[in-house]
Amino acid sequence: MDEPPEEAEDYELSVGDVMTDGYVAVPADISIEEATDRFQEFAPEDPTQTTIYYTYILDEDDRLIGVASLREMLSAPDDDPLSSIMKEEVVSFHETADAEQAAMDVADLHYPAVPVVDDDGQLVGIVRSDTLVDVMEAESSEDMLRMQGMNLPELGASDLTDVEEQRSKIMLDASLSDILRIRVPWLIVALAGGFLAGGVIGVYEDTLEAVVILAFFIPVVMDMGGNVGTQSSTIFIRGVVLGHIDKSNVVRRIGKETAVGALIGLMVGAVAAVVAFMWLGRADIAYVVFGAMVGTSIVAALVGFLIPWLVYLIGQDPAAASNPIVTTIKDVSGLLIYFGLATLLVIELGV
Amino acid sequence: MDEPPEEAEDYELSVGDVMTDGYVAVPADISIEEATDRFQEFAPEDPTQTTIYYTYILDEDDRLIGVASLREMLSAPDDDPLSSIMKEEVVSFHETADAEQAAMDVADLHYPAVPVVDDDGQLVGIVRSDTLVDVMEAESSEDMLRMQGMNLPELGASDLTDVEEQRSKIMLDASLSDILRIRVPWLIVALAGGFLAGGVIGVYEDTLEAVVILAFFIPVVMDMGGNVGTQSSTIFIRGVVLGHIDKSNVVRRIGKETAVGALIGLMVGAVAAVVAFMWLGRADIAYVVFGAMVGTSIVAALVGFLIPWLVYLIGQDPAAASNPIVTTIKDVSGLLIYFGLATLLVIELGV
Repeated sequence: MDEPPEEAEDYELSVGDVMTDGYVAVPADISIEEATDRFQEFAPEDPTQTTIYYTYILDEDDRLIGVASLREMLSAPDDDPLSSIMKEEVVSFHETADAEQAAMDVADLHYPAVPVVDDDGQLVGIVRSDTLVDVMEAESSEDMLRMQGMNLPELGASDLTDVEEQRSKIMLDASLSDILRIRVPWLIVALAGGFLAGGVIGVYEDTLEAVVILAFFIPVVMDMGGNVGTQSSTIFIRGVVLGHIDKSNVVRRIGKETAVGALIGLMVGAVAAVVAFMWLGRADIAYVVFGAMVGTSIVAALVGFLIPWLVYLIGQDPAAASNPIVTTIKDVSGLLIYFGLATLLVIELGV
Repeated sequence: MDEPPEEAEDYELSVGDVMTDGYVAVPADISIEEATDRFQEFAPEDPTQTTIYYTYILDEDDRLIGVASLREMLSAPDDDPLSSIMKEEVVSFHETADAEQAAMDVADLHYPAVPVVDDDGQLVGIVRSDTLVDVMEAESSEDMLRMQGMNLPELGASDLTDVEEQRSKIMLDASLSDILRIRVPWLIVALAGGFLAGGVIGVYEDTLEAVVILAFFIPVVMDMGGNVGTQSSTIFIRGVVLGHIDKSNVVRRIGKETAVGALIGLMVGAVAAVVAFMWLGRADIAYVVFGAMVGTSIVAALVGFLIPWLVYLIGQDPAAASNPIVTTIKDVSGLLIYFGLATLLVIELGV
């Protein structure tokens, strides 16, 4: 954790953005009594910062070399050097580390604060676990809003109160023009996807003209792809954020998700085919609906994992960019499968 | 914060589920030196729990009456009674309080831990801010997964490591049968919505038979409603979770969102109408597309806020139950508006 992450995600908060300077740092060669005094003298401007009871120990170049808890300082003889109780295995974050990842690490470690160092190993701040609760809140809100295509403003301030305002409340309290600027661009992109899907129907105009009741199942096929696809990409994006999906297992994960998509398609497609048959009394159309549901579900599950992964690989935020691409691919492929099967089974073969 | 919440949300973790017993509690009448000794003697099984440097002060009935920080204890004369430095204004949580709300409160308060009391005001545990990072992580993952209709298992354990496993990783590592049990039920519900939408097209079979190219815009109208509706319900659900939406402002919020929906519909609908006209060269169909986009966008924004609010009012999780209802309403109403307008303008009036 003391190295910068392999892939810096510049759309996320870094540890350096959220660290504070409410800590005590001393050289190693002073006595425990002196260190305890320094701790008591420490009076940060913000009194809430006094709740961190660690003393960080630096070498002559301000590099972090150890840590001592106030508990240990109180239990040891006053005249002993601080180095006698110093713990040298210090968990630290690099200042460029991702703050959301740091929050999860801190939760696992059960530390109330973790020191932050720069490239030279010099102590530049501490990051507090209560601050990281704010980070989790802001980042999870951001993920959810970005997944629905909301083009949130870049972070300017290092004050997390601002971050929360910017990331969540803005969607409610911003001016109408700001809200439209955030929400409309993605809807225009998604509109292009809708027209592409409409174009697929246009390609099969003759089929639809011949059997107009085929149109009844357009919503069924589109909703199926949409629901399976958003389930998949939500699972995928949470998996990446929480560290459950990475390069070592992504191929296996995508394979499993595609198999899940096939099974879901078989189950839901069977139900849909039965309902379609009861509605119209036509076995040929029921076969087409079944085939389209299975095909759409497989494609939607596959692209629901694959597209966010590709977006992540090129260094973009998968939550922001994946949804319109996934929607367009599953709409176009779902309608192609549906009308393609219909043209084959209903028109040409007359099943 | 020391009262139970007005509406207990039984699908969420409570503070009591995540509290620990890693704290020191003493009577008020002992000396500061004695209290400091008790603090040093305190040796919980889990050494990470020693990072909380507060002493909680109880009356003879174990009710929490004050708190003192180790810092204050070290700075005061050893022989003074602990009551001389005791802070009587103690922020505490009731054990039934919602853990996610507690996490956000702790982040605002900047406390590393907050004491937890029962109905009698007796101290029953403390909740640590690092634990609450876990809570935020688990709850936000859960919100996202539930919004996509995933039927997550009820919480059994009070160990947050289990919670995280249950809530996020299960979607990746569970057996195929478990995954299908979690994901398929909602897809079947959504399938019913898709058939309802298909039924609307069925009602207008004659219109579609007469002008089959109307089918080309079914995906456009459905995608528009879907995208606006999921944006709205995502914003709404985050707003409720973060406390920005409540009974005092919900009517105004819903009104504003509906206005936003209308503006979005006007903007995106204008683009869609121009594209439709360029594609088919028919002004009548362009008018119909424009009207349907505006109508769908208004309905989707309105129900995107209204349905989660109604679900919340009856005590259910809005993230879990809203999506299929919103999808069905916007699909049915969007297609009704589209084909209704088409029947009027294209068939009957021949605009």
